[in-house]
Amino acid sequence: MIITLTTDFGLGAYVASMKGVILEIDPEAKVVDVDHSVAPQDVRQGAYALYSATPWFPFAIHIGVVDPGVGTERRGIVIACEGAMFVGPDNGLLIPAAESFGIKEVHHITNKEYTMRRASYVFHGRDIFAPIAAHLSKGVKLREIGPEVTDYVKLDFGTPVVNEAGIQGEVLTIDRFGNIVTNIPRGIVSERWRFNQDLEVSIGGYDIRLRLLRTYGEASEDALLATMSSSNFLEIAKRNGNAAALVNARPRMPVTVRPVA
Amino acid sequence: MIITLTTDFGLGAYVASMKGVILEIDPEAKVVDVDHSVAPQDVRQGAYALYSATPWFPFAIHIGVVDPGVGTERRGIVIACEGAMFVGPDNGLLIPAAESFGIKEVHHITNKEYTMRRASYVFHGRDIFAPIAAHLSKGVKLREIGPEVTDYVKLDFGTPVVNEAGIQGEVLTIDRFGNIVTNIPRGIVSERWRFNQDLEVSIGGYDIRLRLLRTYGEASEDALLATMSSSNFLEIAKRNGNAAALVNARPRMPVTVRPVA
Amino acid sequence: MIITLTTDFGLGAYVASMKGVILEIDPEAKVVDVDHSVAPQDVRQGAYALYSATPWFPFAIHIGVVDPGVGTERRGIVIACEGAMFVGPDNGLLIPAAESFGIKEVHHITNKEYTMRRASYVFHGRDIFAPIAAHLSKGVKLREIGPEVTDYVKLDFGTPVVNEAGIQGEVLTIDRFGNIVTNIPRGIVSERWRFNQDLEVSIGGYDIRLRLLRTYGEASEDALLATMSSSNFLEIAKRNGNAAALVNARPRMPVTVRPVA
Repeated sequence: MIITLTTDFGLGAYVASMKGVILEIDPEAKVVDVDHSVAPQDVRQGAYALYSATPWFPFAIHIGVVDPGVGTERRGIVIACEGAMFVGPDNGLLIPAAESFGIKEVHHITNKEYTMRRASYVFHGRDIFAPIAAHLSKGVKLREIGPEVTDYVKLDFGTPVVNEAGIQGEVLTIDRFGNIVTNIPRGIVSERWRFNQDLEVSIGGYDIRLRLLRTYGEASEDALLATMSSSNFLEIAKRNGNAAALVNARPRMPVTVRPVA
Repeated sequence: MIITLTTDFGLGAYVASMKGVILEIDPEAKVVDVDHSVAPQDVRQGAYALYSATPWFPFAIHIGVVDPGVGTERRGIVIACEGAMFVGPDNGLLIPAAESFGIKEVHHITNKEYTMRRASYVFHGRDIFAPIAAHLSKGVKLREIGPEVTDYVKLDFGTPVVNEAGIQGEVLTIDRFGNIVTNIPRGIVSERWRFNQDLEVSIGGYDIRLRLLRTYGEASEDALLATMSSSNFLEIAKRNGNAAALVNARPRMPVTVRPVA
Repeated sequence: MIITLTTDFGLGAYVASMKGVILEIDPEAKVVDVDHSVAPQDVRQGAYALYSATPWFPFAIHIGVVDPGVGTERRGIVIACEGAMFVGPDNGLLIPAAESFGIKEVHHITNKEYTMRRASYVFHGRDIFAPIAAHLSKGVKLREIGPEVTDYVKLDFGTPVVNEAGIQGEVLTIDRFGNIVTNIPRGIVSERWRFNQDLEVSIGGYDIRLRLLRTYGEASEDALLATMSSSNFLEIAKRNGNAAALVNARPRMPVTVRPVA
């Protein structure tokens, strides 16, 4: 069984400890790193990493650990979906990815038989989520993990406002290239505008005129452009450059897009 | 067999070359990264990464390469322990982890039959340690690697001084969250103080009053706190923040902890 | 079959998506990361990462994605070599590594049967190169991928100029330690100079006298030195320090080396 890991730990000894725990319980597990570069405690960014990567996997158990509430009353959960399972804290982290698969059942992790006997208060990734995922991988049934719950914490990427002034959304994430991924989905864009059309984008105090293009290389050298991200959201990019640095973009920053008058 | 890698190389072509060498010799090996973000030449930080991650693995061969003396007279060694083997330079890097398992035998790597025929002087990770680990994984006996030695280089994390002024230790490492892990072990702390007790910590010229808590989320928003690290050392943290940045903490910096008068 | 990945994506959700696609098509594939820290769009640096790591692998399919021209007219190619296959954009990225194995055939990827049905314009790593590699791993024949081509884009690391003034080359790459790897191959150096000889190096406006040594630890504490890199190029390093930071070295910067008069 494939078990993937998404955390804000950086790739180091914390993540390795989780892999050790998994391989101790299920030596056949195939552990794959999704993303460990999530900004510390940024649940929303972790949720986006899971959302954008997990749909490309065959059936897998996806562990997510971005967990500012570790050791407190916040619950640990397992979410069963049609083509995936998710394991992690009940803080919304797993929800956008799980919803993209379709949530079937959510269970609260309560059975200490499948977690470390003396779980630390500060590292549930290693002491609870890793062993739970490995036991699920080995065939432990969901109902043995703990009771079903329906009041789990929700999280979404927000719904852009569409009116005569244009589309108002926000920055979802910024990738390593400085491409600015917004929360404006492809559907909203393609209903209104066509590729090669000019748009006006307001972000971070800047008003930018740019063209909606299929890909970066269609823009003039070093020009800003809009395109559809590989996760199907409107993306602001700079050909061979860093758009985010240019406008000081940050996650949650408002973005307004309208056609050039 | 699981073979893990801990280096100061960063995750890139150097580490990949080691993986290629291992898989060439033992195609069945399961190679797992422990940590490649160790600060260049920081043997002590590498030792801590190995110490904190390797006990969580089932039987594995752990390669460590933080190796300022590569190509000089410093020896390469293999350490056999009860539940693990360690391969790397004889500079102390492997010792704290190996001692936590219990050292059975240490052998000096001298048999060139199991290393690259023309080993470079600058990259023993690829040319000596990776092939040795892969041959051990394939069943080569320890005594074939080279002669047993007992005068290997020692390394420990230091012993805190305990007196009426409190406990004086030092900074062991700083994690990606800015949590400051000290070399003060859980035993010393729990003999003296209880959770929810207030402590005074002196570090980097700052005197800080904080509470000893089970976990981060028990602190007030943005407050500093003390807790027990997942490796069972006293840790200074900031809820949802970076404690190390606040006090300019660095490895080896003295830390004094005493109860509030 | 081993499938390796070299990209400028950073290790995160983009790379994970590629792994998911590969494992969906070929669950038996053993996916190994080579380097994801290549500077954005730096084809030459990616080419060097592939060149330095891939020769150490047993037979493998190596995917490279440093791809400023993604979605434009630039072609995708597969290169068949004696002990390896390479998959990626036709922009030179794969060439130095492939040439080190010996190029047998280059094919243009045209058969959409083996790529994502609705390939994005911005992420061919996930939508074209990953599925092509996985299908090749499963046994699809090279000729089914697309027609053979001979006019693929070339790339080399440049040829140093050798004359009475010395050897003039350039900086190839800078590693995590700040070691400056030049494009001056071992052969040119060893024909002229011996270890322990003093050399004068001009780089970035600095004229530096240093010694050609077998390894870092032979230099005086904190001294600059020249040595042979693990990829067999002349390397400028600083013992226990960062040579590149000292002289502000950058890729492509000229380097002149001559014997001390």
